[in-house]
Amino acid sequence: MSGNDPEIQAGREISRLIELMAKLPGLGPRSARRAVLQMVKKRELMLLPLSRALAEVAERARVCVDCGNIDTTDICAICRDPRRDVATLCVVEDVADLWAMERAAVFRGRYHVLGGVLSALDGVTPEALRIPRLVDRASGGEVSEVVLALGATIDGQTTAHYIADALSGAGVAVTSLAQGVPVGGELDYLDDGTISAALMARKAL
Amino acid sequence: MSGNDPEIQAGREISRLIELMAKLPGLGPRSARRAVLQMVKKRELMLLPLSRALAEVAERARVCVDCGNIDTTDICAICRDPRRDVATLCVVEDVADLWAMERAAVFRGRYHVLGGVLSALDGVTPEALRIPRLVDRASGGEVSEVVLALGATIDGQTTAHYIADALSGAGVAVTSLAQGVPVGGELDYLDDGTISAALMARKAL
Ligand SMILES: [Zn+2]
Ligand SMILES: [Zn+2]
Repeated sequence: MSGNDPEIQAGREISRLIELMAKLPGLGPRSARRAVLQMVKKRELMLLPLSRALAEVAERARVCVDCGNIDTTDICAICRDPRRDVATLCVVEDVADLWAMERAAVFRGRYHVLGGVLSALDGVTPEALRIPRLVDRASGGEVSEVVLALGATIDGQTTAHYIADALSGAGVAVTSLAQGVPVGGELDYLDDGTISAALMARKAL
Repeated sequence: MSGNDPEIQAGREISRLIELMAKLPGLGPRSARRAVLQMVKKRELMLLPLSRALAEVAERARVCVDCGNIDTTDICAICRDPRRDVATLCVVEDVADLWAMERAAVFRGRYHVLGGVLSALDGVTPEALRIPRLVDRASGGEVSEVVLALGATIDGQTTAHYIADALSGAGVAVTSLAQGVPVGGELDYLDDGTISAALMARKAL
């Protein structure tokens, strides 16, 4: 016997929500079903607040035009914060890595989010990673050091070396996170202590 | 050094959404961050559809007054479906179990969702589980069999025996899913085949 129509089970809207939730990273059909059920059961505590929060983010979230961070303003709170050191730029692959750096709370400069790493296989070019824009920012006179906080993967290290070359005429020190980032490891998986230690022990390239 | 203010990292609205998502079953702070980041990156494909789906569910989801299923109508689609057999009622602990039964697609009757199992420790009474309402439904004349599809846990089996006693004057056959439900197992974790086999081999209590 074939499966019953999933829309008949739970209503078209609920099935649609489960289907969309199941596509999120870390969730699958089963956890999406449990999450939606939990939301519906906790209408006041979960469903309504989540619906409002998601609507607000949908309306207001945007990419910072300076650094590539995500915030609800055109220039993100980190780029706007006058207490952040304008002389140091930290280059990360992804917004998740920027958030991981911020949780470690030892870096007081600003960021440049590449949005990926160079990959000949996947056709990811320096332009796609906003590397020309990084060179502009680093050459403006304010910046004295660019810290490369990229993963210890082959593509991450290739990208780091490409950026170090690109910045060779910018008159800035180019450093990278110390050994301490596990080989093959991704930044966003590290605990705060490892990130702090690697940043403290950063070395010149 | 203490952690940076998470609101400064990503904006108040985005931090709030991550915080709420992290409370869903199966998610934690890390998977919530990744999920929200993915949504924001895939604005048209994920963020907007999810926001709309969640708003619709928040507005329309309700508990079926007859069976306790969740749908977007006062009487759920299963209870309204004239092709479903009114003579058979299947008693499940939770809506997740009802959905699991429906995915197995071998049961063609209607349901009664208890919303829990009897537990002296947690103070869960027969009234809280709508067992008097189940006895009413089973005694109405239309129903000839009540299938107990409860987990093979101690509380599940205690509840099954309590319901069998409560239904002893209702003039209906009371059956339960066959052995095949693993001891200590919860229904919602089973594959469709196990549920089908257990339903097919159901036995009189
Ligand atoms: Zn920014
Ligand atoms: Zn119903």
